[in-house]
Amino acid sequence: MTTKKTVASLPVSPLAPKKFAKLAPLAGVELQAMASGSRYVGRDDLLLVRLAETTQVAGVFTRSKMPSAAVDLSRAHLAGGKARALVVNAGNANAFTGKAGAKAALDMAKGAAKLVDCQPEDVLIASTGVIGEDLDPAPLLAAMQDSQAGPAKRSDWQAAARAIMTTDTFAKAATRTAKFGKHQITLNAIAKGSGMIAPDMATLLAFVFTDAHVPARLLQKLLSEANGQSLNCVTVDGDTSTSDTCLMFASGDKKCDGAPLRSLDDKRLAPLRAALAELMQDLAVQVASDGEGISKLMTIEVMGAETDAAARNIGLAIGNSPLVKTAVAGEDANWGRIVMAIGKSGEAAERDRLSIDIGGVQVARKGRAVAGYDERPVAKHMRGRHVHIRVNVGVQSKTKKKATGKARIWASDLTHGYIDINADYRS
Amino acid sequence: MTTKKTVASLPVSPLAPKKFAKLAPLAGVELQAMASGSRYVGRDDLLLVRLAETTQVAGVFTRSKMPSAAVDLSRAHLAGGKARALVVNAGNANAFTGKAGAKAALDMAKGAAKLVDCQPEDVLIASTGVIGEDLDPAPLLAAMQDSQAGPAKRSDWQAAARAIMTTDTFAKAATRTAKFGKHQITLNAIAKGSGMIAPDMATLLAFVFTDAHVPARLLQKLLSEANGQSLNCVTVDGDTSTSDTCLMFASGDKKCDGAPLRSLDDKRLAPLRAALAELMQDLAVQVASDGEGISKLMTIEVMGAETDAAARNIGLAIGNSPLVKTAVAGEDANWGRIVMAIGKSGEAAERDRLSIDIGGVQVARKGRAVAGYDERPVAKHMRGRHVHIRVNVGVQSKTKKKATGKARIWASDLTHGYIDINADYRS
Repeated sequence: MTTKKTVASLPVSPLAPKKFAKLAPLAGVELQAMASGSRYVGRDDLLLVRLAETTQVAGVFTRSKMPSAAVDLSRAHLAGGKARALVVNAGNANAFTGKAGAKAALDMAKGAAKLVDCQPEDVLIASTGVIGEDLDPAPLLAAMQDSQAGPAKRSDWQAAARAIMTTDTFAKAATRTAKFGKHQITLNAIAKGSGMIAPDMATLLAFVFTDAHVPARLLQKLLSEANGQSLNCVTVDGDTSTSDTCLMFASGDKKCDGAPLRSLDDKRLAPLRAALAELMQDLAVQVASDGEGISKLMTIEVMGAETDAAARNIGLAIGNSPLVKTAVAGEDANWGRIVMAIGKSGEAAERDRLSIDIGGVQVARKGRAVAGYDERPVAKHMRGRHVHIRVNVGVQSKTKKKATGKARIWASDLTHGYIDINADYRS
Repeated sequence: MTTKKTVASLPVSPLAPKKFAKLAPLAGVELQAMASGSRYVGRDDLLLVRLAETTQVAGVFTRSKMPSAAVDLSRAHLAGGKARALVVNAGNANAFTGKAGAKAALDMAKGAAKLVDCQPEDVLIASTGVIGEDLDPAPLLAAMQDSQAGPAKRSDWQAAARAIMTTDTFAKAATRTAKFGKHQITLNAIAKGSGMIAPDMATLLAFVFTDAHVPARLLQKLLSEANGQSLNCVTVDGDTSTSDTCLMFASGDKKCDGAPLRSLDDKRLAPLRAALAELMQDLAVQVASDGEGISKLMTIEVMGAETDAAARNIGLAIGNSPLVKTAVAGEDANWGRIVMAIGKSGEAAERDRLSIDIGGVQVARKGRAVAGYDERPVAKHMRGRHVHIRVNVGVQSKTKKKATGKARIWASDLTHGYIDINADYRS
């Protein structure tokens, strides 16, 4: 069943960062990128991360009703709040593979557990690639075993980010530092998504590492909060993967002084919380910037909605609309399509109080076109790589109080490149 | 603001019917197609339908939160259950036009009411075309006034279907007959949707006419039922318009004998009910067959879902998925993407009992690929114009009873043609 693939030669996204971020080594985190030869030829496709014994873990997963075997396993293993190893393979998503898939995921966890001397329950797995093909764990386990001999390249974050790519056109990473009590801590993260070639499913994987000591329960809250305003606000095509996984590991090297951390609102957590929000948004923008066939990145700000969740739904309705996406690709400030998308979101919106800005110029106000607005700066804005759309949906309570729900969404446009990538014959 | 447009010369959809259906004249229904010269040059763009005094009316409209002024007006006028006239203009949707738009719609209703000698409340309006441009009712009213002199072409259904097109590549109509007590009745329908050129919003308009006498309350139930299994099961790009309108008029020429009709389950209604379901599905297939840039029509059958509504959501998730649509365009039986779409629908589905047929061949069963299925008939099926996808999502109750929710969805694929049509610069 398994088809060998040479590395795809898609052109690098025009929105790729100029260079790979500089990520410092992290105490308690050892990375090892390997080539298992399972599917791709001539590149690393397997990542093993060894984690200190003190490591706490948190995670968020796809809400798909068809989760992969790797997602099933990691979701279960997350319950303990501890982790000693993370294994990521690229090329086969181990999704829709039935009992054989569950066994393959467990075999991977057992193999890694033996290497790092821990319980299989302390191992998390993420798999990305083709759906519905059986995953043979043997070459992955052999690669991990063989690489024991060589020196672990502890800080090669770029090699790690490359090893988890499927058809991404650039490796994605971000880093931040923050005060943590008396300490300076570091947050490093890598992610993959969402280029695609024929049979592979675009999936989003993101892994955040820090040397701070944060208990798993709090770590989960931190991650969920940051994720809700970053990766969960990205859309390329509205197609939710079976394998989306975001995990955060706190190796515990740096402890905060004073009483144990208990609440998200503990002031000592504030710098970490802010740095994590920034880091995750950085990753989110990188993922959207590598959307299949992207020519322009949309940033969509929604305000005046009933709730933040309603604002997010409205923003996603705009960012997912094929008509809005093609208009942006065509450099057409077609705000009529934005109105349509807001209307179809199903969320409360006041047609006759709605306003829309494109590139900072108000083009619609109080439910109709702004008569005679200057189209030149708008047309110039549409010709750039970054398109900013801001809508105020004007919801008011019965007492005329203005609603304050807001959200920011990042989305790619829809181009011939998307069709080329996804309508290829499966070879 | 108004830009004159010559008629678009998009190639006719490869899925267009061979010829326009033969629609017989209907007692109590007079059609008049006219050219107002408002936006399009050299074609009719205005339709006036005069209806007998006995006419009962029912309607369903877009669920958009940004409805057009025409939708607002027709929704209000529908309340009475009676209608004497229908006015449809193509080229300007009169949507997102504020108070001026509401006044323009009312002026159209008043003008038509004067011509047919009725109350403005007995006139329904539908408008389709560009969003956010003020609609000037004057040329429309003038055209209606002028055409008074000429003979009403009572049975020119093709002229009527053509007059309401925007960028459709073919005129859409369907007809059925049915027994109605001792009578033979006729159902005629015309529809438009969903080609598109730059600034116009794809909208769906459908009008059904019958010479039967059916009270408005029952007519509404009949229409809602048929619509739920036809037009509401069509998707081109998942973008709900601000103007979608489907109206049904019963002119009342043919009365059913016996007691008044009261219930949808009255046996005397059964032939009409069946004919209406067929007629509406015929229209639905025609609309999907003219989806922007279409190369293949998907028919998606879903069964084993929790409810019919859940089945419909799953079918729409498949039919709207850009990844499924591009795979179909690329003639790739990529059922992994179908699994993904089912998973993202949010509806209950049993991964490990899921089965998928493509072109009648089972490719996945019990949550995994069918080992060694014959790919040749599937590949051949994918090369055709009609792609049939059937999924059984295998939901069971706690008592192991199999769920029976089912739905059928029609969807176009996603091709370079779609991008060409929608990413054009707005001229």
